[in-house]
Amino acid sequence: MERPIITLTTDFGTKDGYVGAVKGVIKRINRHAEIIDITHELRPFDVLAAAFALKNCTAYFPRGTVHLAVVDPGVGGERQPLLIKTQDFCFVGPDNGIFSFVYDSEGISEIIRLSNREYFLADTSSTFHARDIFAPVAAYVSLGVEVNQFGSPAKECVKLLVPQPKATKRALTGEVIHIDGFGNLITNIGAELLHKKSIASISIGKKRINRISHSYVDIHSGQAGALIGSSGFLEVAMNQASAQQVLSAKIGMRIKVSFS
Amino acid sequence: MERPIITLTTDFGTKDGYVGAVKGVIKRINRHAEIIDITHELRPFDVLAAAFALKNCTAYFPRGTVHLAVVDPGVGGERQPLLIKTQDFCFVGPDNGIFSFVYDSEGISEIIRLSNREYFLADTSSTFHARDIFAPVAAYVSLGVEVNQFGSPAKECVKLLVPQPKATKRALTGEVIHIDGFGNLITNIGAELLHKKSIASISIGKKRINRISHSYVDIHSGQAGALIGSSGFLEVAMNQASAQQVLSAKIGMRIKVSFS
Amino acid sequence: MERPIITLTTDFGTKDGYVGAVKGVIKRINRHAEIIDITHELRPFDVLAAAFALKNCTAYFPRGTVHLAVVDPGVGGERQPLLIKTQDFCFVGPDNGIFSFVYDSEGISEIIRLSNREYFLADTSSTFHARDIFAPVAAYVSLGVEVNQFGSPAKECVKLLVPQPKATKRALTGEVIHIDGFGNLITNIGAELLHKKSIASISIGKKRINRISHSYVDIHSGQAGALIGSSGFLEVAMNQASAQQVLSAKIGMRIKVSFS
Repeated sequence: MERPIITLTTDFGTKDGYVGAVKGVIKRINRHAEIIDITHELRPFDVLAAAFALKNCTAYFPRGTVHLAVVDPGVGGERQPLLIKTQDFCFVGPDNGIFSFVYDSEGISEIIRLSNREYFLADTSSTFHARDIFAPVAAYVSLGVEVNQFGSPAKECVKLLVPQPKATKRALTGEVIHIDGFGNLITNIGAELLHKKSIASISIGKKRINRISHSYVDIHSGQAGALIGSSGFLEVAMNQASAQQVLSAKIGMRIKVSFS
Repeated sequence: MERPIITLTTDFGTKDGYVGAVKGVIKRINRHAEIIDITHELRPFDVLAAAFALKNCTAYFPRGTVHLAVVDPGVGGERQPLLIKTQDFCFVGPDNGIFSFVYDSEGISEIIRLSNREYFLADTSSTFHARDIFAPVAAYVSLGVEVNQFGSPAKECVKLLVPQPKATKRALTGEVIHIDGFGNLITNIGAELLHKKSIASISIGKKRINRISHSYVDIHSGQAGALIGSSGFLEVAMNQASAQQVLSAKIGMRIKVSFS
Repeated sequence: MERPIITLTTDFGTKDGYVGAVKGVIKRINRHAEIIDITHELRPFDVLAAAFALKNCTAYFPRGTVHLAVVDPGVGGERQPLLIKTQDFCFVGPDNGIFSFVYDSEGISEIIRLSNREYFLADTSSTFHARDIFAPVAAYVSLGVEVNQFGSPAKECVKLLVPQPKATKRALTGEVIHIDGFGNLITNIGAELLHKKSIASISIGKKRINRISHSYVDIHSGQAGALIGSSGFLEVAMNQASAQQVLSAKIGMRIKVSFS
């Protein structure tokens, strides 16, 4: 028999035992669930980074995987707890935009606002819903409880306003939306926007790049280059060094691609 | 058939392969054991932080879980290796206070000093007992070996002296005993001490707080507030910011709750 | 039935979801594979550190374990993707020296250069072979696919030139080859070189050490000492402090052991 998979994505760090509590709650409800860590090292309160991490990996998991994701600065406030069912997966977490990219890429079949306390821990705190609400709900989902048992349908959800690139005939203007652990600058310019275009130059800060490289080793050592990264976006990167450091880059930094 | 669970809590970091060795040893002895990481990112040698992490999570796991915890500055010296059996769990690790909170909250049925080399790795180093002693013992426990097979009973154990709050009719004085990854200051003032009390003010450093908030979002932005945290202690926190940074807080910082 | 084990060793960090993608790919191909994290916190591009982490742990795992290790600065370039079969394990990763210590310690039976695209993801990027090539290959190996199905045999592999210690009758000169998370300085002087020798002194930087200690607690507080570490090498360490900090040590720092 296949064991159900529950993935975890949080900004908790591991050292305080908070993630341990989440894991314990899951295993106590569904002893057969297999817990897979995505990350617990997101910058505290960085919902966009969480959304980006989820975008990079959730779709690779087997059908039926439950993705639990909690970066939750609004815990205990008015933000709603959600369960989202798509064609292949269930997503459980706060309604704060953390699933923004899910709405774009997956066919959403149901959105449920979690309200049935039968599936929460008995004593629900107002500071740790990952342990008290999201973990038990994810565990019960993995046990096969029907999603409409957890609450009532919702129509709208919070969606992060991810800045979109602007296009003219001669150029595309975008910005850095994520910086990864290698210091690669991931922009909001999707590969499809560059398809069959002839690129004259790419400008970011004071740096001018003349071509799109095939791979990191294809970039001249010590120079920033550009390539299509593994997430499908135009990326500014270096060969064995950090573009973030060398270009003093930050989220929101502008990039311009000029066509010839 | 249910797979036995072994949780891991260490200060090893992961990058040197030490945790990998512990995992390998466990899986070689009990292929069916399910290993669940609590944390490997504790500050080196910080036994109290380990005890606090364990307090926050171990009780949530299913009955029969084996909790392996090794922050072990005294490895190879006179501190004893322990196996503690409580009503629900087994704890394996050094006798240095790491299980201090276990003694308070769990009904302890047996404490065994590990001495039976039959259950250690063949070549036991004097620098890495997690790999050579604690991991194999945890694995054999998960296989169902009776706890009294591992050594002889012990009566006393090292217990960390966690500072206790002082109470008068008009006030409670306590201190910060843990700072979590969000910069929340967890004090030694348990929620039960504040039950049905009318609070006039809470003082910490130069900061004066007038009420206990319901949740983090309930705290005024940019101000330190107080609430009952998920561990059941009075906590000084901020709304999407670090109270540690803003108050320049450290472990041991004093806090005073005045009643009206 | 025993579930196959796949271990993961990378320099990806976890926060970008790259490791999550690797895990998803594995689970989608072999739902029964058990994924065990060794580390994702290696310094970016540090192939030697990866080799050292693998050396410290892979041999402890059960026979049949698949070790997936990707620190891959040359991804998308000319370096080859490899599958190495030893007596007990399979290793999957780039041919850049990451398996250098495997060649020394394991009996290698086959080395395969991965070329059969049938076992890669359909769209293979030039920037993320861990997800597109190594993860699916590891998963198919864990399913029992014969190693010669993945490509053709290779004879030579890249091997890191780990500096070797120099011996005279009266002394051994070596260097620091790894610094662990506790700040312990692991040298290239194997315990076997010191066997039955009478040590007069050990010099490192301006520090002179007079004896080999039994354990960390056996070292005088506040002083650097020496001992045989858990990896089987001479190690310069302190009692509950970081030798790296106190001696301002770096990889490559020289150490001299004088015999009496």
